[in-house]
Amino acid sequence: MARSSDAPTPSTPTIPSEPSPVLFWETVNAYQRTAALRAGIELGVFTAIGEGGDTAESLAARANASPRGIRILCDYLTVIGFLAKEHGKYRLTVDSAAFLDRRSPAYLGGMLAFINSAELSGGFSNLTEVVRRGTSLMPGSGVVDPDDPIWVEFARSMPPMMAGAVEFVGEVSAQGGARPLRVLDIAAGHGLFGIAVAKRNPQARIVALDWSNVLKVARDNATAAGIADRYELLPGDAFKVDFAGPFELVLVTNLFHHFDMPTCESLARKIHASLVPGGRVLTLEFVPNADRVSPPIPASFSLMMLGTTPAGDAYTFQDYDRMFRAAGFSRNEPLQVPRSPQQLIISHR
Amino acid sequence: MARSSDAPTPSTPTIPSEPSPVLFWETVNAYQRTAALRAGIELGVFTAIGEGGDTAESLAARANASPRGIRILCDYLTVIGFLAKEHGKYRLTVDSAAFLDRRSPAYLGGMLAFINSAELSGGFSNLTEVVRRGTSLMPGSGVVDPDDPIWVEFARSMPPMMAGAVEFVGEVSAQGGARPLRVLDIAAGHGLFGIAVAKRNPQARIVALDWSNVLKVARDNATAAGIADRYELLPGDAFKVDFAGPFELVLVTNLFHHFDMPTCESLARKIHASLVPGGRVLTLEFVPNADRVSPPIPASFSLMMLGTTPAGDAYTFQDYDRMFRAAGFSRNEPLQVPRSPQQLIISHR
Repeated sequence: MARSSDAPTPSTPTIPSEPSPVLFWETVNAYQRTAALRAGIELGVFTAIGEGGDTAESLAARANASPRGIRILCDYLTVIGFLAKEHGKYRLTVDSAAFLDRRSPAYLGGMLAFINSAELSGGFSNLTEVVRRGTSLMPGSGVVDPDDPIWVEFARSMPPMMAGAVEFVGEVSAQGGARPLRVLDIAAGHGLFGIAVAKRNPQARIVALDWSNVLKVARDNATAAGIADRYELLPGDAFKVDFAGPFELVLVTNLFHHFDMPTCESLARKIHASLVPGGRVLTLEFVPNADRVSPPIPASFSLMMLGTTPAGDAYTFQDYDRMFRAAGFSRNEPLQVPRSPQQLIISHR
Repeated sequence: MARSSDAPTPSTPTIPSEPSPVLFWETVNAYQRTAALRAGIELGVFTAIGEGGDTAESLAARANASPRGIRILCDYLTVIGFLAKEHGKYRLTVDSAAFLDRRSPAYLGGMLAFINSAELSGGFSNLTEVVRRGTSLMPGSGVVDPDDPIWVEFARSMPPMMAGAVEFVGEVSAQGGARPLRVLDIAAGHGLFGIAVAKRNPQARIVALDWSNVLKVARDNATAAGIADRYELLPGDAFKVDFAGPFELVLVTNLFHHFDMPTCESLARKIHASLVPGGRVLTLEFVPNADRVSPPIPASFSLMMLGTTPAGDAYTFQDYDRMFRAAGFSRNEPLQVPRSPQQLIISHR
């Protein structure tokens, strides 16, 4: 807020405590934040700064873009917290260096192909009507249609966002030490959760269940991780395919939120029937508090499901506890996943 | 962040100070904030809460919408700060009661017809290409095409957002007491700035300049304010029409930002030539600090101009000072407008 010393100081009359339109203004224009971040990523602005560009002119040359466009974009990205600017020069923040510079192993820019895809964002183009009807306006069953190609995009682009959770699932799965472990990874996607279990425990064998087009991505990742000989593919619909248990461990990562509670409970029953006595389920989810309005990321995930699914939701721990108990499980423990807005729920048969 | 007492406390491992993907996640999904606010306004949710509805069920009945949709929407609006929720019941915040309840005189919901119009938001649908080219991809000259009907929408819907600035322009114009005053209101829009001057000073006569379709709105407002007998219409293009001075006062509210600096300077020269000696210009604008990245609202307005105009910008006070001096003005004073993110610059001939 510092002003240049040669500018007269504007006279600021005392403002009484009263309503402010600031939040309204910022929110009606919030869609421009998404657009600006995307432009910065697509133009490689963060990478160009990481490589040493620091003025609008030098960045424009590196990004093959207009200096005026880059100047305005970089100023905006500074305002919304993705860059710092001092003495007219831009630099990356700690977050941008880690997640937005293409050279970083934690680069998240690839996620936009899924999270800002026309399919997902289209779910919010007429949210008024979605709220009227209480269900997605997307054709068919929204993102939960069989073989929806968006899940291939998901499997390809989401791994960096999931790094913390993948590591944590591996750790939790290894509690009790190395022992023979047959693992079912339901809606495996990129497969990284099951693969993390296999990497921690040489006696673990993974059965990865997903649509067949998605399983190609999981299989490639299993091969790259050197555990393909302990990695089996089970293509199909989680609600219909024979699980062919028994399993010691079942992984359900980011799946339940797509469905209504009775559907989730029916899946929990099916999982229960496939587990050995003492077997466990690890459920990775966006889990808001019982008030359903905190913490911000899990609580706001509910709207994502309203816009893109027929009846999905972000369920509370209380919801999951009730659901798993009704399906026959004896107890459930919630764990906060480090470096992630998600929780991991351990359910014991 | 409080959890219900019947939930086990999740174990939260200590997280070292390290990069966080939270801002990234919130920004890729920020477009949903705009969609949710719009849905809340269009469904009359804020008005329904103001009228006494406080549960998802009662609000759904009032808004003729799905209880599931309303519950998820209201939880989301709570997360992003537009509602409060306690014991499962929603209530308005101070800001929402003032600006989002249709019964409030300061209701801002009508603004969406302009600020979230397909035309304006379309300017950001491919921001990457806009930044590459350094100019709006909108057809013609973006929002500055002659007779663009969006300015009629602007004139109709923006007055509530401008209330603080309108009051302040009236006050500043009245400095020096009541005296004969011929006033030119350039790009008058709704006309409220000139009308505020006329209401403060019974000897003031206003000439309102804008596209003829827009001037109908201004004339109606002048009539409603009871000053139509001192209100003259001057339809046309501010850069081409004969101002027919001299004037003691010229108002330039939210106009300069649409153009590049040489164009602004040519307009300032034309204004200078139409002023009496000692005459003043009042320029209402989004004026970022010299760093161009603060305060947030004026600084981020630059992106709005990148997306929607050929060469507009949010200029600093230093820019305006240089421009008005080059056009012959002797000095310029910046004033912060109370209850507004904008500044008023007084330029003296």
